[in-house]
Amino acid sequence: MTRDEVSQLIINKKRHKQLKWVQLAEAIGQSKEWTAAALLGQMTLSEAQAEKIGVLLELPVDAIEMLQVVPYKGSLPSAVPTDPLIYRFYELVNVYGVSIKELIHEEFGDGIMSAIDFSMDIRREPDPNGDRVHIEMSGKFLPYKKY
Amino acid sequence: MTRDEVSQLIINKKRHKQLKWVQLAEAIGQSKEWTAAALLGQMTLSEAQAEKIGVLLELPVDAIEMLQVVPYKGSLPSAVPTDPLIYRFYELVNVYGVSIKELIHEEFGDGIMSAIDFSMDIRREPDPNGDRVHIEMSGKFLPYKKY
Amino acid sequence: MTRDEVSQLIINKKRHKQLKWVQLAEAIGQSKEWTAAALLGQMTLSEAQAEKIGVLLELPVDAIEMLQVVPYKGSLPSAVPTDPLIYRFYELVNVYGVSIKELIHEEFGDGIMSAIDFSMDIRREPDPNGDRVHIEMSGKFLPYKKY
Amino acid sequence: MTRDEVSQLIINKKRHKQLKWVQLAEAIGQSKEWTAAALLGQMTLSEAQAEKIGVLLELPVDAIEMLQVVPYKGSLPSAVPTDPLIYRFYELVNVYGVSIKELIHEEFGDGIMSAIDFSMDIRREPDPNGDRVHIEMSGKFLPYKKY
Amino acid sequence: MTRDEVSQLIINKKRHKQLKWVQLAEAIGQSKEWTAAALLGQMTLSEAQAEKIGVLLELPVDAIEMLQVVPYKGSLPSAVPTDPLIYRFYELVNVYGVSIKELIHEEFGDGIMSAIDFSMDIRREPDPNGDRVHIEMSGKFLPYKKY
Amino acid sequence: MTRDEVSQLIINKKRHKQLKWVQLAEAIGQSKEWTAAALLGQMTLSEAQAEKIGVLLELPVDAIEMLQVVPYKGSLPSAVPTDPLIYRFYELVNVYGVSIKELIHEEFGDGIMSAIDFSMDIRREPDPNGDRVHIEMSGKFLPYKKY
Amino acid sequence: MTRDEVSQLIINKKRHKQLKWVQLAEAIGQSKEWTAAALLGQMTLSEAQAEKIGVLLELPVDAIEMLQVVPYKGSLPSAVPTDPLIYRFYELVNVYGVSIKELIHEEFGDGIMSAIDFSMDIRREPDPNGDRVHIEMSGKFLPYKKY
Amino acid sequence: MTRDEVSQLIINKKRHKQLKWVQLAEAIGQSKEWTAAALLGQMTLSEAQAEKIGVLLELPVDAIEMLQVVPYKGSLPSAVPTDPLIYRFYELVNVYGVSIKELIHEEFGDGIMSAIDFSMDIRREPDPNGDRVHIEMSGKFLPYKKY
Amino acid sequence: MTRDEVSQLIINKKRHKQLKWVQLAEAIGQSKEWTAAALLGQMTLSEAQAEKIGVLLELPVDAIEMLQVVPYKGSLPSAVPTDPLIYRFYELVNVYGVSIKELIHEEFGDGIMSAIDFSMDIRREPDPNGDRVHIEMSGKFLPYKKY
Amino acid sequence: MTRDEVSQLIINKKRHKQLKWVQLAEAIGQSKEWTAAALLGQMTLSEAQAEKIGVLLELPVDAIEMLQVVPYKGSLPSAVPTDPLIYRFYELVNVYGVSIKELIHEEFGDGIMSAIDFSMDIRREPDPNGDRVHIEMSGKFLPYKKY
Repeated sequence: MTRDEVSQLIINKKRHKQLKWVQLAEAIGQSKEWTAAALLGQMTLSEAQAEKIGVLLELPVDAIEMLQVVPYKGSLPSAVPTDPLIYRFYELVNVYGVSIKELIHEEFGDGIMSAIDFSMDIRREPDPNGDRVHIEMSGKFLPYKKY
Repeated sequence: MTRDEVSQLIINKKRHKQLKWVQLAEAIGQSKEWTAAALLGQMTLSEAQAEKIGVLLELPVDAIEMLQVVPYKGSLPSAVPTDPLIYRFYELVNVYGVSIKELIHEEFGDGIMSAIDFSMDIRREPDPNGDRVHIEMSGKFLPYKKY
Repeated sequence: MTRDEVSQLIINKKRHKQLKWVQLAEAIGQSKEWTAAALLGQMTLSEAQAEKIGVLLELPVDAIEMLQVVPYKGSLPSAVPTDPLIYRFYELVNVYGVSIKELIHEEFGDGIMSAIDFSMDIRREPDPNGDRVHIEMSGKFLPYKKY
Repeated sequence: MTRDEVSQLIINKKRHKQLKWVQLAEAIGQSKEWTAAALLGQMTLSEAQAEKIGVLLELPVDAIEMLQVVPYKGSLPSAVPTDPLIYRFYELVNVYGVSIKELIHEEFGDGIMSAIDFSMDIRREPDPNGDRVHIEMSGKFLPYKKY
Repeated sequence: MTRDEVSQLIINKKRHKQLKWVQLAEAIGQSKEWTAAALLGQMTLSEAQAEKIGVLLELPVDAIEMLQVVPYKGSLPSAVPTDPLIYRFYELVNVYGVSIKELIHEEFGDGIMSAIDFSMDIRREPDPNGDRVHIEMSGKFLPYKKY
Repeated sequence: MTRDEVSQLIINKKRHKQLKWVQLAEAIGQSKEWTAAALLGQMTLSEAQAEKIGVLLELPVDAIEMLQVVPYKGSLPSAVPTDPLIYRFYELVNVYGVSIKELIHEEFGDGIMSAIDFSMDIRREPDPNGDRVHIEMSGKFLPYKKY
Repeated sequence: MTRDEVSQLIINKKRHKQLKWVQLAEAIGQSKEWTAAALLGQMTLSEAQAEKIGVLLELPVDAIEMLQVVPYKGSLPSAVPTDPLIYRFYELVNVYGVSIKELIHEEFGDGIMSAIDFSMDIRREPDPNGDRVHIEMSGKFLPYKKY
Repeated sequence: MTRDEVSQLIINKKRHKQLKWVQLAEAIGQSKEWTAAALLGQMTLSEAQAEKIGVLLELPVDAIEMLQVVPYKGSLPSAVPTDPLIYRFYELVNVYGVSIKELIHEEFGDGIMSAIDFSMDIRREPDPNGDRVHIEMSGKFLPYKKY
Repeated sequence: MTRDEVSQLIINKKRHKQLKWVQLAEAIGQSKEWTAAALLGQMTLSEAQAEKIGVLLELPVDAIEMLQVVPYKGSLPSAVPTDPLIYRFYELVNVYGVSIKELIHEEFGDGIMSAIDFSMDIRREPDPNGDRVHIEMSGKFLPYKKY
Repeated sequence: MTRDEVSQLIINKKRHKQLKWVQLAEAIGQSKEWTAAALLGQMTLSEAQAEKIGVLLELPVDAIEMLQVVPYKGSLPSAVPTDPLIYRFYELVNVYGVSIKELIHEEFGDGIMSAIDFSMDIRREPDPNGDRVHIEMSGKFLPYKKY
């Protein structure tokens, strides 16, 4: 059983049982964003968390074990994503990348926003002209070490 | 004079004059995020805005005119960015892409977050363990039209 | 069962039963263009629609369920398509891309034609010199938000 | 003087003189779509047409001559376009490509829509929910020759 | 059964039965060039043709049906072919491409040689210094439509 | 002066002087196909030939010398050509590649058609349904050496 | 059974039976270099040779037949090889390519070294500072045909 | 002055002065293969060697200095070379790569042939059927260190 | 059984048996770094080593044999790695590559650090600000041979 | 003046003045590794540091200013480096990447070694069998944040 097959199995089981990501997240005491990433093969569950998910989704032992292994990360099948929703984020990096770089360097100096010490929150933002997707990201600023 | 040369000139002039992005933004009544994107060749200024920037940064007429032309967008020199700061955002798309897709579809159904009817806010988030970069994105949800 | 296998199964069943796309489209109350896209893994059916298609094409439960899941979109196996018919459209984007961009910006200003709030109509255009393929596309113009 | 420089020069001259594509098109008796493509280095003008454009835009002799040479076509700097407006058309090919193929083959049999014996019309479609970009394409159907 | 599997099956059956391409071609009343392309997944047989081939090569019903479906064309596993024989043709396009373009445009004006209304003939050309491969191609010239 | 600049200069001079490829070819006693390839940087002229072309096209000494140097071959700016005329040949390799391979191997055994001991002839083939481009290629068959 | 599977089977059988390439080569009267290439899917055996190998390695009939079919050549899974031993040869082409080209053209004029009428010999070259790999290549020089 | 410009200058000077690579090689006491590689930007000359070449080819001081700097190596403009002569070597790596690997490992065990402690000799091999290019390579075998 | 399957099996067995890499390394008398590389398909075990690992991990005979075969090396599924941990090393090569090259050449002259006569040591470096990963690499310097 | 031109200028000036990296490093109170990276366009100098380097290398004001601007990082001209010295490091990532990942995760859990809070030391390691390049890397371990 490969990690991709575990991810596919989880998506199918979740659909059959009509569970929401937020319900799975509450079961393991994490956010829905982290939980989705973990169950889709990008983060690592503790043994206790994996077992809770295993019970909720009736996963086989093999799958439960795999959820505790650090995965080879990267969820997209091509360097430039073809899916329109995901491509829009790639486009934002392409269009705004240099601007974000300028603004962060102006504020913080040379360094990066961590993608590891990082959290994300996605929610609906009601709007009379059509609701909006609201995403907040928070990543620790890491200055380049001088040595 | 190409658009890239205009962008390079603006960065140099801004450095010489010790101006901040927020000062340029206030001069044209937009956010610092939109302003940086516009001056770096990704958005289009109105004639009045272009002239104000032209005065502030002592740009030649050619450059002022070019800022009013809709640019061919895309600010990165390669499909997978090599700059560590920008790469981290590409990595977030790679690691979280499928999860973001799952969460948005669960909440909104089939569709995308617009990268056009979109705004972004970048700011420092003080934190005793090291300050953080805080980014908020807001994009209109666009449902796939059924016809 | 993967989504690709569902698409392949639908193509085979449709051929065996000698059904036309327009017949499948009428059964679910959509256009033939949207219907073909949906059944080939690019759009999402409602439960009622999926069940009607399931009956018409004698699909297994698994396939009927999958038609209701938002798919990872993108129907081509390579970045530059090799199939001559599809390549011609890619070529049109390559040859006319910058011209279309100029004409839309001249008429509407900076922004894009939505590929989400979008519809398409394909039909035969009789012509004494040989019939023609006639395609109409209509996409909402989305102006870049200034903020 | 390269062909790209001629295209760039034409865009600049057109902006300075505040001419519309439709005005340039009328001057040479063609559509605005074909005219934009020709002046941006994708089609070939006759001698009379090139000279009319040369007068209108005050082009040097070199540029007028180049407009009469069949160009090496292809207007985009990368295989997958980075500009959001142009990318949307690439995305349409990606999402709808196989569906268009299915529908054309069902109607016409094996063959392609010509991208050479082809015309295009782009216009504004007023709509209370926001105006739309309306594009009509008409290409001769070319059946695969059996021999 | 995928189209690739049908092609592989045909190659094996043809080898076992010691049939030549020209024999298969005669059975369906086409040239050996078109017939090889069709049986290797690039062209579409009529029902009568598919059944004759089915009998000759003892193909299963599934394969016979697939030969009547318009295939997703493109026979090579990579953008630059690795097989030395096929690469030589790619090399010819690379070395002679611009020259062929110049010569065709000089003779015909702007347009292309059709790859659809096209036929090809491959034969042995006896030569005392070593026999030669002789290939004739004939494609309709298609002038770019002005509109 | 680079080889590309020599090629560009030759194309410009040829246009100004209204010379045909066949006239340049006769001047050096070669075919128009070989001559176009040589003058566009893919073949090597003898000293006498280079000087004749130099006189005809009024080339500087530098260019005349460069025509006698074996060039780094390959005339296309990208692995998959974007120009529609040249792409059609690439498409033919893609669609017919495996078929040509099968037919040559059936006739000759394992080996290739030489792209070096090779000649080509391009001419107009009159046809009431529209004239055709007729191309003949002749390349020595080279069997794989067994050792 | 694909050709790759035949190659894999041969490698396994050879290891189990503890045979050397030179022993397989002697059995069919060829060099060890040609034999390895043929059995790994790059050259074509005669019927007699295939049967001898079939007996020696206890291959199934299917595999014996496949060894007599001209293969689609190219043994590497990526354009730039990742295996360090094979990469060193790619590196030699990269570092020395232009130099080899210069030296061959200086000696022979415009043309190539054939990779078809070609033989290779690999052997150990004893050396007190560490034994060396010694490779000799011999390929017929093919001058570009002038026509 | 870039290293590429130095290489181009050397090729031009060498042509004007009608010098052979072997003459340049003798002047600095190295082989013609190493000398060509060094002068084309792949190896590093000593100060004495660079000055001798500088006198012979009348190079400017800048160029003489650059010949003593370790270059960024790699002489080809694309990952898969387009020049037919150089491509043939790439093809040999592709067709024979796995076979060479098998033969070296059988003889030496796990390790590589060094491309650094390496020498090459290229010479004409007279042959009544057409002269041949003969290349000898000798590289130290480097076993993988176990630790 | 492919080499990838052997690697996957070893990872699973190791997890089930709760063995550490250092325990496997001690069993065969090598470092944990070399051992991990060997068991993950990049190095070659001796017969005795393979059998010890076979017993420890209860591997089938097939897998034990494969561990003694020199593998086709390269452990990553794409040219630019997507996994964040591995990408950081790729980024270091990208950011520091030219600097490392300068420093090694300044110290040693033209040549390389061997990746074959090479060893590596990875360990935890305690640090009050957060523990660090400490990696030591030692590779023989190989000077370019002059000949 | 672009950043690349600044890097090139620094390399030339350093060579003319016969300065070592360690001397430049001492002048600004950093290590030679960080200093080389900074002067080659990958790190950012303080104003005082830039001025010291400016005096030492006689740089123009423009260059001194650019050394204080955060650069767009990435020092290599292609995704897979062609220079043999730099490629060896890429190869190490390819061959050892998954092993390093396994060993770090076993020791630290899920997370990465920082390439930002990172230092490196390169030195000569004397060895009777040929001196070795010794590289030490130290990067903070960053655990994936759970949220």
